Amino acid sequence: MSARAERIYTAAVVIIGNEVLSGRVRDANLPFLARELKALGIRLREARVIADRREAIVEALRALCPRHDYVFTTGGIGPTHDDVTAEAVAAAFGVELVRNPEAVAILERHYGDEINPARLRMANTPAGAELLDNPVSRAPGFRVENCYVLPGVPRILQAIFDGFKHRLAGGAVLASRTVTAELAESLVAEGLAAVQERHPEAEIGSYPHLRRGRFATAVVVRAADPGLLEAASAEVVELLRGLGAEPEVSEGEERTPEGGGES
Amino acid sequence: MSARAERIYTAAVVIIGNEVLSGRVRDANLPFLARELKALGIRLREARVIADRREAIVEALRALCPRHDYVFTTGGIGPTHDDVTAEAVAAAFGVELVRNPEAVAILERHYGDEINPARLRMANTPAGAELLDNPVSRAPGFRVENCYVLPGVPRILQAIFDGFKHRLAGGAVLASRTVTAELAESLVAEGLAAVQERHPEAEIGSYPHLRRGRFATAVVVRAADPGLLEAASAEVVELLRGLGAEPEVSEGEERTPEGGGES
Repeated sequence: MSARAERIYTAAVVIIGNEVLSGRVRDANLPFLARELKALGIRLREARVIADRREAIVEALRALCPRHDYVFTTGGIGPTHDDVTAEAVAAAFGVELVRNPEAVAILERHYGDEINPARLRMANTPAGAELLDNPVSRAPGFRVENCYVLPGVPRILQAIFDGFKHRLAGGAVLASRTVTAELAESLVAEGLAAVQERHPEAEIGSYPHLRRGRFATAVVVRAADPGLLEAASAEVVELLRGLGAEPEVSEGEERTPEGGGES
Repeated sequence: MSARAERIYTAAVVIIGNEVLSGRVRDANLPFLARELKALGIRLREARVIADRREAIVEALRALCPRHDYVFTTGGIGPTHDDVTAEAVAAAFGVELVRNPEAVAILERHYGDEINPARLRMANTPAGAELLDNPVSRAPGFRVENCYVLPGVPRILQAIFDGFKHRLAGGAVLASRTVTAELAESLVAEGLAAVQERHPEAEIGSYPHLRRGRFATAVVVRAADPGLLEAASAEVVELLRGLGAEPEVSEGEERTPEGGGES
């Protein structure tokens, strides 16, 4: 199977945000990045939510950057005292934090006479950083080696990401198919394990939920190889039919409402 | 200040879920646990979203359990082949995975004649685990040392958590107050840094957003000591008034809509 030999690209996301850890804000950036990376053929392997503290950021980047093709950070690059991401990224990569002349020019052009020391603070980047264009509010994101440093406000993060995503190298897009049936997960489990064993290269996930007040299970099959996706999902359909259900099949990962299942 | 001498209790959350990393599901358990832990006087320091893989779970638990008073895992304790959390927790703590007789009794009582091998799989726990009652769908969560193992379905996780949370020891609840003004964050930054410097024991966060189409900043002051909260937030109000704004003050962490700020 040719798909096996292909290079797999992986990524991690670091969400820098006391406001997420305190429950004040429900993060919206991880769902966005997860979907975008999937479409680019990049596997998101891990995400961390950490505090706005320099040591916490340094530790996360030192753990994740050597391990993945790409690391994306969100948050902490604004003008206030609690924005410590730029200096932490510099520390993690062992370079100086410098005032980036290109960023200064962008901010001066944008703010004109209203430029001030706090706004200029957003021009501080690790030495050698490449700026990432911010078409919304101008203060740029930046990249150091494989680490992409993005703001926390979703609308701005998305605009910046859209501007550079075509430059990210990815592998085969993991295709997926969802097979849903009104059956309790525990009735499907044994047969599903057998399908997974026959197709170790496919990733078969089982997601219980409630549907029209009844137990239902969504089985998501993910595979880089189209033939494998076809074979494994056909076996799942057969399995569910054999258990008396009328499974529904849809392309991609169908979202199910949050609801109570067996676990 | 007596609050300084108090013991601080910390926690981490580990979200076990390929479906969150693929973007299929937007996690709802972290916001719930964040708010609950805050109310209990337990500081949530970090969260990780990891894949349904034994090695990933073992690694996260070995990193986080020695470091925090409590670790909560969500997901991966159902009846299917992709539910590997129980065996991973056993491996992380270096104990055997055993069939828990108390859990078997609960499941047999619940399922009656419809008990099957997949359902009994939900009675497997690390040796020495304490069961956590599940009033919704019966298959229990469990605790090993300081690690609380919970299911991924939000309604069930919440019901189990409600059942044991009174037993969690916490410290002083971090009180908070939100001061909001229609001012760009970068105009507030300099003065805010000075307030933070005068009150290093308070945690002052600045959150830009759009409000009625204009730049606004929510400043959240968090402190364990009520006098400190009062003093620091009064200074923030003065600062914003001095900048010509009419700040609004509310208790707690007021949520702001997702919107575009300066970063």
